[in-house]
Amino acid sequence: MVNEFKNAAGVTFPQGFKAAGVKAGIKKSGNLDVAVIYTEKEAVVAGTFTQNAVAAAPVFASKAVVATGMAHAIVANAGCANACTGEQGEKDAKATQEIAAKALGCDPLDVIVASTGVIGVTLPMDKMENGVKEAVSALSEDGSSAASQAIMTTDTHPKSAALEIEVGGKKVRFGVIAKGSGMIQPNMATMLCFITTDLAIDGKLLQKALSEIVETSFNMISIDGDMSTNDMVIVMANGAAGNAPITEENEDYAIVKEALDKLCKEFAKEIADDGEGATKFLTVHVTGTKTFADAKTIGMSVAKSPLVKTAFFGADPNWGRVICAVGYAGVPMDPEDVVVKFGDVPVYAHGVGAEHDVEALAKVMEQHDITISIDMGQGEEEATVWTCDFSYEYVKINGEYHT
Amino acid sequence: MVNEFKNAAGVTFPQGFKAAGVKAGIKKSGNLDVAVIYTEKEAVVAGTFTQNAVAAAPVFASKAVVATGMAHAIVANAGCANACTGEQGEKDAKATQEIAAKALGCDPLDVIVASTGVIGVTLPMDKMENGVKEAVSALSEDGSSAASQAIMTTDTHPKSAALEIEVGGKKVRFGVIAKGSGMIQPNMATMLCFITTDLAIDGKLLQKALSEIVETSFNMISIDGDMSTNDMVIVMANGAAGNAPITEENEDYAIVKEALDKLCKEFAKEIADDGEGATKFLTVHVTGTKTFADAKTIGMSVAKSPLVKTAFFGADPNWGRVICAVGYAGVPMDPEDVVVKFGDVPVYAHGVGAEHDVEALAKVMEQHDITISIDMGQGEEEATVWTCDFSYEYVKINGEYHT
Repeated sequence: MVNEFKNAAGVTFPQGFKAAGVKAGIKKSGNLDVAVIYTEKEAVVAGTFTQNAVAAAPVFASKAVVATGMAHAIVANAGCANACTGEQGEKDAKATQEIAAKALGCDPLDVIVASTGVIGVTLPMDKMENGVKEAVSALSEDGSSAASQAIMTTDTHPKSAALEIEVGGKKVRFGVIAKGSGMIQPNMATMLCFITTDLAIDGKLLQKALSEIVETSFNMISIDGDMSTNDMVIVMANGAAGNAPITEENEDYAIVKEALDKLCKEFAKEIADDGEGATKFLTVHVTGTKTFADAKTIGMSVAKSPLVKTAFFGADPNWGRVICAVGYAGVPMDPEDVVVKFGDVPVYAHGVGAEHDVEALAKVMEQHDITISIDMGQGEEEATVWTCDFSYEYVKINGEYHT
Repeated sequence: MVNEFKNAAGVTFPQGFKAAGVKAGIKKSGNLDVAVIYTEKEAVVAGTFTQNAVAAAPVFASKAVVATGMAHAIVANAGCANACTGEQGEKDAKATQEIAAKALGCDPLDVIVASTGVIGVTLPMDKMENGVKEAVSALSEDGSSAASQAIMTTDTHPKSAALEIEVGGKKVRFGVIAKGSGMIQPNMATMLCFITTDLAIDGKLLQKALSEIVETSFNMISIDGDMSTNDMVIVMANGAAGNAPITEENEDYAIVKEALDKLCKEFAKEIADDGEGATKFLTVHVTGTKTFADAKTIGMSVAKSPLVKTAFFGADPNWGRVICAVGYAGVPMDPEDVVVKFGDVPVYAHGVGAEHDVEALAKVMEQHDITISIDMGQGEEEATVWTCDFSYEYVKINGEYHT
């Protein structure tokens, strides 16, 4: 989906960034499982984190780094979430920061840490220590690909992108690696997204832009409605591009925000498209509401409905389930005002089923990418939510108990 | 689950009630699909209905009957929900009331109507008319079993019960038939529950008791989080038992409310246990909250989590998914205060996994009925939610597109 961006250079595409991914033996599979992203030139850092009240230790440790406004590195591991691990988990997250800081020659509070994997199991610190040291010594400008693989869980493919724009006459680069709604038994999906850029920008402005963008990108996807204990989106900007530092919401800021928004939206869609067991990518576009919040609430109600998701898995043009999910979303509405389309085929209009071309609708349902358009006819606001269908494979991935 | 109540007499167990179920040809299967319940002695009536903003025509028609406070009959059909059918749907619901009223010799506003089945399709009124007339002529004190079969969709078995209590020295009987989270392709689950009693009680008190009881019974079950357009619980009390009419919240009222509460809770559990594709019956018991609402919110968050439901399908003692769902429920909490048990085996305590007997836990996970106990440690309130697991069969039932 992000072909226009796909670029193996990933997080090392911007100037001054190096990365590495190594096998530390944390994943049972023996695959790459520890990633390090590093910028020698100190970077301003911004981050958004899971809202789950049961957040993992690395989430708290990384929030403290973001609070300082500056960072040099990101250390991420897959295979163990270091969540629900109590004081030991906090100690292990801090120890990981210290191990990386010592190896990199920076301050522990300059090191973002992220984990994804099994909940309730403490990090194997001997393996982490060796892995982090090995990754640091392996840091290179060709290391993004390995890093992107090291953070994968059951993602079907590594997720990497890069983008170049011009800011104030200077070329500014962005790089991204992310992992999506993969599941590592026996736990829940985690979304990690690490964005690097050589942009020069004030840290608070970067955080403002990221926080706003996440609301309409990563916060608009739902695989199964479950919110992870470990979700994290981090942006590091080291200023190596040499652009006039952005310190106010000027034209340069607008250009940068648009680029960052595009990257985040494309990745959000990519993650939904790679949802566990997904066979369909569903875009729920809700228009004509009084507020964005109403549109999001309705879109999420439809996107989370197991009946809607199983219907699309079965290529069943089942508008009854969609209008039902709209009806119980909790937003005051009059069915008479609502029009629903699958693709460009109207299926429900003003309280009743809409006359439509059955063959055209069948063609829409056979596609991989399907847009469900819902116009509520009560206002001018809108929102778009992305999700995937519910398949046998989803139940298999999450219902199989591997001992 | 309601063995202590199971009784084929069902809705005809109370004095003065007759019932019938006939084949009107509305179900493609050709099975029984039109039910009539009748009391010649006028009954006070109480009802609760779906909160879905997209409610079916019969819901509006029956609300009007409940508003009059009195009723003589319930006419229900399966095979067509008469939902999203616009003005024609309203006309058909009214016509059904008139057909039944004429055949029974009562007022159309004395006839509750209920439908479950395909959305967006209008009722085949010729079949309905013949079906209703045939059912009326077939009314008998042995008709409850046929009536309970006529309202089934994909329920695996008809749901019927009866109960006798003593009120002020008089024997008072209750009878129930219900249909649960069956699905009739291509639409969503609908819950219908019809309760008859020969109790003499003020209509407003009966409504008050029912409304309160539904909050802690039928409103505490979740199969897949989807709320139907057609849900309805109706109670008809014809006073034939000859007890001193209950006109205030006295001891008799308490006895009656307790009996009604027991019936509704047992049926709610029965419906969850017969959820689509269910292989496990899950009781989520949340204690130690500041309010009932908080406990219900947390219980529903766990009960609706596809990750929790697939884990139990896989007999996976995956407490990480449970504490995760508790964490994102939206109720302020401190993981340090929380204790989670599966059956009587502690799995999570005060922020970390709890030491436990692995074999004992494995035994719990193999059972059909499993209780997930969650103590939040922040107050004295509690709530119990009932649900079932998420199986391949659920996806099959809802993902298979029958044309």
